[in-house]
Amino acid sequence: MSFTPAVAEQRFVLEHVARISELGVEDDILDAVLEGAGAFAAGEWAPLDRAGDTVGAQWSPEGVTMPDGYRAAYQAYVEGGWGTIGSPEAYGGQGLPFALSTAVLETLGSANMGFALCPTLTVGAIEALAHHGTPEQQAGYLPKLATGEWTGTMNLTEPQAGSDVGALKTKAEPRGDGTWSISGTKIFISFGDHDLADNIVHLVLARTPDAPAGTKGISLFLVPKYRLNADGTPGDFNDVRVVSIEHKMGLHASPTCVLSFGDNGECIGELIGPEMGGMRAMFTMMNNARLNVGLQGVQVAERASQRAVAYARERVQGSREGKPASIVDFPDVRRMLMRMKAQTMAARALVYLAAAQVDRANAGDAQAKALLDLLTPLAKAHGTDLGCEVASIGVQVHGGMGYIEETGAAQHFRDARITPIYEGTNGIQAADLVGRKLNMDGGATLTALLAQMKADAQDSGLIALIDACAEVTQHMLAADMDDRLAGSYPFLTMLSTAACGWLMEAQGRIAAGAGGDPEFLAMKRAAVDFYVAQIVPEAMGLKAAAMASAEVLYVVQADTFAA
Amino acid sequence: MSFTPAVAEQRFVLEHVARISELGVEDDILDAVLEGAGAFAAGEWAPLDRAGDTVGAQWSPEGVTMPDGYRAAYQAYVEGGWGTIGSPEAYGGQGLPFALSTAVLETLGSANMGFALCPTLTVGAIEALAHHGTPEQQAGYLPKLATGEWTGTMNLTEPQAGSDVGALKTKAEPRGDGTWSISGTKIFISFGDHDLADNIVHLVLARTPDAPAGTKGISLFLVPKYRLNADGTPGDFNDVRVVSIEHKMGLHASPTCVLSFGDNGECIGELIGPEMGGMRAMFTMMNNARLNVGLQGVQVAERASQRAVAYARERVQGSREGKPASIVDFPDVRRMLMRMKAQTMAARALVYLAAAQVDRANAGDAQAKALLDLLTPLAKAHGTDLGCEVASIGVQVHGGMGYIEETGAAQHFRDARITPIYEGTNGIQAADLVGRKLNMDGGATLTALLAQMKADAQDSGLIALIDACAEVTQHMLAADMDDRLAGSYPFLTMLSTAACGWLMEAQGRIAAGAGGDPEFLAMKRAAVDFYVAQIVPEAMGLKAAAMASAEVLYVVQADTFAA
Repeated sequence: MSFTPAVAEQRFVLEHVARISELGVEDDILDAVLEGAGAFAAGEWAPLDRAGDTVGAQWSPEGVTMPDGYRAAYQAYVEGGWGTIGSPEAYGGQGLPFALSTAVLETLGSANMGFALCPTLTVGAIEALAHHGTPEQQAGYLPKLATGEWTGTMNLTEPQAGSDVGALKTKAEPRGDGTWSISGTKIFISFGDHDLADNIVHLVLARTPDAPAGTKGISLFLVPKYRLNADGTPGDFNDVRVVSIEHKMGLHASPTCVLSFGDNGECIGELIGPEMGGMRAMFTMMNNARLNVGLQGVQVAERASQRAVAYARERVQGSREGKPASIVDFPDVRRMLMRMKAQTMAARALVYLAAAQVDRANAGDAQAKALLDLLTPLAKAHGTDLGCEVASIGVQVHGGMGYIEETGAAQHFRDARITPIYEGTNGIQAADLVGRKLNMDGGATLTALLAQMKADAQDSGLIALIDACAEVTQHMLAADMDDRLAGSYPFLTMLSTAACGWLMEAQGRIAAGAGGDPEFLAMKRAAVDFYVAQIVPEAMGLKAAAMASAEVLYVVQADTFAA
Repeated sequence: MSFTPAVAEQRFVLEHVARISELGVEDDILDAVLEGAGAFAAGEWAPLDRAGDTVGAQWSPEGVTMPDGYRAAYQAYVEGGWGTIGSPEAYGGQGLPFALSTAVLETLGSANMGFALCPTLTVGAIEALAHHGTPEQQAGYLPKLATGEWTGTMNLTEPQAGSDVGALKTKAEPRGDGTWSISGTKIFISFGDHDLADNIVHLVLARTPDAPAGTKGISLFLVPKYRLNADGTPGDFNDVRVVSIEHKMGLHASPTCVLSFGDNGECIGELIGPEMGGMRAMFTMMNNARLNVGLQGVQVAERASQRAVAYARERVQGSREGKPASIVDFPDVRRMLMRMKAQTMAARALVYLAAAQVDRANAGDAQAKALLDLLTPLAKAHGTDLGCEVASIGVQVHGGMGYIEETGAAQHFRDARITPIYEGTNGIQAADLVGRKLNMDGGATLTALLAQMKADAQDSGLIALIDACAEVTQHMLAADMDDRLAGSYPFLTMLSTAACGWLMEAQGRIAAGAGGDPEFLAMKRAAVDFYVAQIVPEAMGLKAAAMASAEVLYVVQADTFAA
């Protein structure tokens, strides 16, 4: 099935939710970028999506090989300048807003979700170096990362250090010349090795000698796969070996690597930012990465929806009013398709709203920064939950064919399932919401957001949900941490749904008054009506769980918690 | 990970929900069957579950080969008499209640879900022959099916006839001697071929000459893989060829076959029941098969829960109160595990309640038959939805390891996903509920069930949900069919949750007063409390969707329903 870029919808959400005109993007630039990215992704990346799944990235002792066509398609991406959209102008990028680069990345990922993870990680490396690198590091690496000629990775996880990053053991020892000798093993490193680019820039969390235990003792290092020659070109191999890749349920186009640093004592790294300042630098990467994982939810939801709608229109089965009917005509199939559309739109609006705050925060807007911090766990967790839900409905719409791999619906279902896990599990996001994000300002940002939502909302069910979120917020602020955590996930879902309802309802009002493609506007209004009338009330059902205490969870002790 | 049969839980639910003592099963028989089946399944079938997934059933032109060990494990099942539990005594079976055979099948399927589909289908064939076969057919086939020495299949689907069975084209032409010549192609035939048994008994829906279009023109045929010799042993090949097997997302131990009947004009079938009476005979198979697919939800939920609890207890990550902690100690992980437990118990209670009505209906209880008819779509659809949900949470509890195939959590997630699709999609079940099942008696059975639930219920949230279900029922009865269908799926979920809440609350009361293993009873009570306090209120959130009209779904026309 061919992929149709969601250009009209992206433009609408960028205009009316992200308010991209305030970010200095002219209409003609907006159109050129969205349409150009769409044509590129549909033409060059989407056709490789199936082979990404069926062939997948392959490991050998020499390294990881991508399926046929991937290297050429990646080079086309670099040459087309698609890597430079959001990169800093000082290093050859176009310096366009993060919100716009979000739309471009969405399109690439809808075309080929596993492949698009590679540029996603490069963006994280650029962020970390741009904020925390020395001028020499920036000059040496950023121009190549900004174009995508080199790619970046994030190296956090070790076998015993997953969600608990502070438990990591990778070592960095001073070599006496200002550089560091890196040794250790990292796991779950996406695109930790591949044959797409001439160098790979690993950003590695490691522990320096005598560093304190936990996250306070962690530093961030720049560790290229190939050290740079004096002229800046990639030179000697830097003793970073890919030991294996994981056998995953999905996302096979993305090699998930076990990387071994310094097996021969010849892995040289440079400190990024101050010693023991690793977590702060890492969070710079991680926060945007979290939005980009939320965006993966949008990517897969969009593609799964397109596939399901196409199938439902085509598949004739039974009859309605005496005539043979396509299944799209049946009410429960319509309900599924409408839910897919509405949830995809909702996830996109939430992620784009957060992305727009990145630009405003970068421009010095402290309120936008606070809103971004609050929205990040919502965009990551709820965006990915919706991606999984929509992909699952997509399988269902296909009936028995959905379970057959050749149809393609199953791939989306398998691909999507990693997104609630990586880049901080959704449980970690919920904990971040009720812990750090509520505590940062005593709930002031959230309270202000809810007040804004309530002022705008018109539907009585939506108003009731917003009120319920305000009530849970007050409950959370007064509760101890275990009770907050016990209700954290239902609360995150309620709050995200309320925010999406607010954004959807506002879009519906605009669509009712706007000129433009009547079919697009009718679909938007129908999806908004469905969301507000059916999905918003569902979230009210989560209030009891959000306010439940931890007590029921601990009645049974861990050692007798029966399987 | 080893599998621990859920014997204590099964016994509790059989006693208190199915009320199995009323069905003539003595305590010692109950214990012997549950414990024996558990020991057999854990010892012989569970160890083959991974190879079922990784190696899977293999096709060649000669037929389907099961992975190493499967044939021996199947023979052990036959020799142990596990196939005979629920089979009719007249044909060598033990004639024990369907409710008890449900528990045995649950255990087999928790051990190895794909493998257990084989006996599940055999049970369907036994039902159809026992109810609709001639004495000769019964004498020829039932003794071998009753022990499992031969296996059965159901052949409904064709490429253009899925949910719309009436569109099938397979032909049956009279051969002049009372037998029929069968020709056509069937798809999605589970265990349509394999090397486990000496014969395979295909029950095939086909169309006789001049039969009217649609379901009215369909007849059911008995088509063995090998024709029977005069002494009843399998003889000549009956021209049933397995053309290929599907490449599915999961359930790889179950070969999903394309079967070609009569390529050489030599496929002979016998009519089962009257000509044009195929749908009625097929429903005999299908109704119990639907309960057994609901039971697959319980199977996979049980296994996924066991795996997640074991992992969560083992996996040390971070700390609580200054000490290293297993993730089972963290509130949101506890919430996930408790949800898995509670939903598994709820699904089991619902399916066992329905199974017990099979026995009562078979004994001539008309009220039980009406209740069975009503509960069947709930048990199938909600049981499988919960299986999928629990398997997905199981992946999440494992974090990144959940996405790695070797861990095993991903297999459950993939295996489970077919269950809401086959044996009538869950959308078809919802349509059955608001159509045929509400219409059969003007809602009398449902209204009576809701009255009983309300009389028993104590929790105010549960009472509110039951009242809401009653309100939606009245709304449905007055609504036109499109409006009913538009709300059918949310209504099915609400109603199922209310029924589960009623069954769970009652179990909680019994557990509070009962003697027995205090750890088991404490876990039961905690899961009940969690279900009533957190899951029941969620279902209230579905009321708006259940009562929404179809209008919002049809605002946009099919041809402009945008992807």
